[in-house]
Amino acid sequence: MKMAFDALVRYQAGGKTYYGNLVEVSSAGFKVTKLNGDLTEGFSASGEDAITVTKLLCPLEKTPIIQCVGVNYGKHATEAKLTVPKYPVIFTKPADALAGPMDDIPIHPDAQVMLDYEGELIVVIGKDALNISEDEALDYVLGYTAGNDVSARNFQMPDASGGQYTYAKSFNSFAPIGPAIWSTKSVPDPQKLRYVTRVNGEIRQETGTDDMIWSVKQIVSHLSRGMTLRKGTVIMTGTPAGVGFFQKKFLQDGDVVEVEVVGLGKVANKMVFNK
Amino acid sequence: MKMAFDALVRYQAGGKTYYGNLVEVSSAGFKVTKLNGDLTEGFSASGEDAITVTKLLCPLEKTPIIQCVGVNYGKHATEAKLTVPKYPVIFTKPADALAGPMDDIPIHPDAQVMLDYEGELIVVIGKDALNISEDEALDYVLGYTAGNDVSARNFQMPDASGGQYTYAKSFNSFAPIGPAIWSTKSVPDPQKLRYVTRVNGEIRQETGTDDMIWSVKQIVSHLSRGMTLRKGTVIMTGTPAGVGFFQKKFLQDGDVVEVEVVGLGKVANKMVFNK
Repeated sequence: MKMAFDALVRYQAGGKTYYGNLVEVSSAGFKVTKLNGDLTEGFSASGEDAITVTKLLCPLEKTPIIQCVGVNYGKHATEAKLTVPKYPVIFTKPADALAGPMDDIPIHPDAQVMLDYEGELIVVIGKDALNISEDEALDYVLGYTAGNDVSARNFQMPDASGGQYTYAKSFNSFAPIGPAIWSTKSVPDPQKLRYVTRVNGEIRQETGTDDMIWSVKQIVSHLSRGMTLRKGTVIMTGTPAGVGFFQKKFLQDGDVVEVEVVGLGKVANKMVFNK
Repeated sequence: MKMAFDALVRYQAGGKTYYGNLVEVSSAGFKVTKLNGDLTEGFSASGEDAITVTKLLCPLEKTPIIQCVGVNYGKHATEAKLTVPKYPVIFTKPADALAGPMDDIPIHPDAQVMLDYEGELIVVIGKDALNISEDEALDYVLGYTAGNDVSARNFQMPDASGGQYTYAKSFNSFAPIGPAIWSTKSVPDPQKLRYVTRVNGEIRQETGTDDMIWSVKQIVSHLSRGMTLRKGTVIMTGTPAGVGFFQKKFLQDGDVVEVEVVGLGKVANKMVFNK
């Protein structure tokens, strides 16, 4: 299947929504060329002239599910006093948690008291995968992007959750990703990226993906064992040290959280507390 | 929206798949009348004559996600030495875990060593729900059915999973439900049902739903708080005492697990170990 893009984005023009290839980012906005197709058909260049837009939407229109990895960086495991188990630690967010790279994140009144960020490298699956070996795993990857595993820690505490992470992380829009899905051709080795998390411009997390305990190959293979990993699935691969919880610095109304894959691009989302 | 059924089923006839209303169960099979429509449009009687079929399919064609409740019966909490937290314990299974009431369950080679059942009362959501109070909750329920939260305990042990339940329960076909979705008119109070789990005919679990720690109303309201609970979502409401794990009696190749809502119907699924 043809996937003719380096940096897959979605945008609106003339009241319609399109897929595009992100060509350039400047102070004027995002220069994009329109793509034809979708995740099922594949993408091909439309041949139309590039246009510049000021907002990018979530690079995926929808997702079957968001699979998340916990405890995947040694220093975060240490700060969280978590031992590393035999397999990757897996939890999920539902499809409605998906949000765009520039979207505001509405925060339910019950989820505001211990609101936190987790900057992560995101993997997007490009074709259905079942019982895939680690060697084959990257063939099933559409590309990579930045993301924030937004977490309402008051629902994650063991006395609230029984120790299950899912609910605290499943609120609508708690999984912003973007701005683009960079192809496997642009990112030949996902373990050689760096990313940074900032809150209102202040650096809170900074890591190389070479420090991941479970690599992208291992995660994709594990998630396809006896379970069909569907195309369009978003995988959040775990967060490094520096989340707010261990510094007792929770997010406040109006805070902007950026997660940037160095040299590629970032999500930047404002937290908007609902009344 | 019109939901003209008492017991919603799906079946095949003449190579096509239909929704139907289950009228009678006899030694000859399942007597069904064809329904027009679907979960989005609503269902209405086709007016065609009843036919008898020998197999029922999963009563849902698909689901957005399967939301599961853990630790929801006092005696199971005691056998599992689990404390009851402030909110329902939530984890998920992906859409591909859905299976029919008479389907074989294929068991991946890595998931066979500590295979277990969990008989449960299942709730199916009939319309999208967001921020719904407990008083309104049952208005969003399409109906109730029986189900089995099949679990590969070797992946659920804390040293394998880091304590997250999801992965162990997410294999394809690990969520058989059925045989019918009984309407809220047929089941006006979901807390007044009884159900039984049998392995090869031997009773292993038996409970009344009046013993649930969190009622259906409370669960639906909780799962809609700031997160859109989509129509077609399957909610597995938790299992009572008697799972195999605490008796060290795991499921073997060929074992048949039945979960029966007394007076209504059952799922009966054979475990088929893959090589």
